Amino acid sequence: MAQQQAQVKFTAVKPQLMVKTPKAVDAVNFYKSAFGAVEAGRSACCPPPTAEQNLPNILCAQLELAGCSFVVYNDDSAPQKIEGIGNQLCLETDDVEAAISKAVSAGAVVEGEVTEGGGACCRGRVGKVKDPYGYVWLICSPSNKCAPVEA
Amino acid sequence: MAQQQAQVKFTAVKPQLMVKTPKAVDAVNFYKSAFGAVEAGRSACCPPPTAEQNLPNILCAQLELAGCSFVVYNDDSAPQKIEGIGNQLCLETDDVEAAISKAVSAGAVVEGEVTEGGGACCRGRVGKVKDPYGYVWLICSPSNKCAPVEA
Repeated sequence: MAQQQAQVKFTAVKPQLMVKTPKAVDAVNFYKSAFGAVEAGRSACCPPPTAEQNLPNILCAQLELAGCSFVVYNDDSAPQKIEGIGNQLCLETDDVEAAISKAVSAGAVVEGEVTEGGGACCRGRVGKVKDPYGYVWLICSPSNKCAPVEA
Repeated sequence: MAQQQAQVKFTAVKPQLMVKTPKAVDAVNFYKSAFGAVEAGRSACCPPPTAEQNLPNILCAQLELAGCSFVVYNDDSAPQKIEGIGNQLCLETDDVEAAISKAVSAGAVVEGEVTEGGGACCRGRVGKVKDPYGYVWLICSPSNKCAPVEA
């Protein structure tokens, strides 16, 4: 078992963003418009629906952005209003203000001011927007401007 | 503005996992042990602490896994118990059972059975573990086994 465990390799890490059914289509369009995400595929439904289920038009879609993938999916159990706890997503860009402006044009809402060093792992410029589905995105200048230290 | 917006480029997408201060060090060690994440850097503190603050030993660390980065950081406002709402993180691997076993050895707790096609965007094998910090990780076989459809 130890040897088997040592061989475990992961090929992808994908945040999964649940949105209240049936808003996944809207959310996909928002992430394309706001952040320039590219749709890599979508699935109609899995696991297979029961006859009684009133199907949303898509179950989920995989989006690609800055070399990473994330998944948007309909979930009946998704809360209408997501509290700002747990994880949030950070997007790095050289032009924080332009990125925020574009996101706002697509329907996001700015949260607070752009600050210097306000991000958890970022000493550069950091702004924050909330998307129409309740998720908070940090818009940061690249974190290689951070100064790592020994703990 | 439209032209400026069109030029927005993102260079990274990084999920940020907050944990209750001062558990970030423990969480970093867990993600290394459970998933084989590699630490790319850590910061002691930003923004700079006030004199009154009792500093945690690190503020945040950046981890790399399967070509993506994520950030773990101490946050005093992090809830002790994170409810299973909002986003979760999916890890893709060819050996779901071995990956779950390794995560459990490191301190994760299995949630439910490994199923076929139970993931939001995955028709392959899918298991689920909750880590000691409240985050749920889907352990899935690669999603290129999914059959995308036209919406």
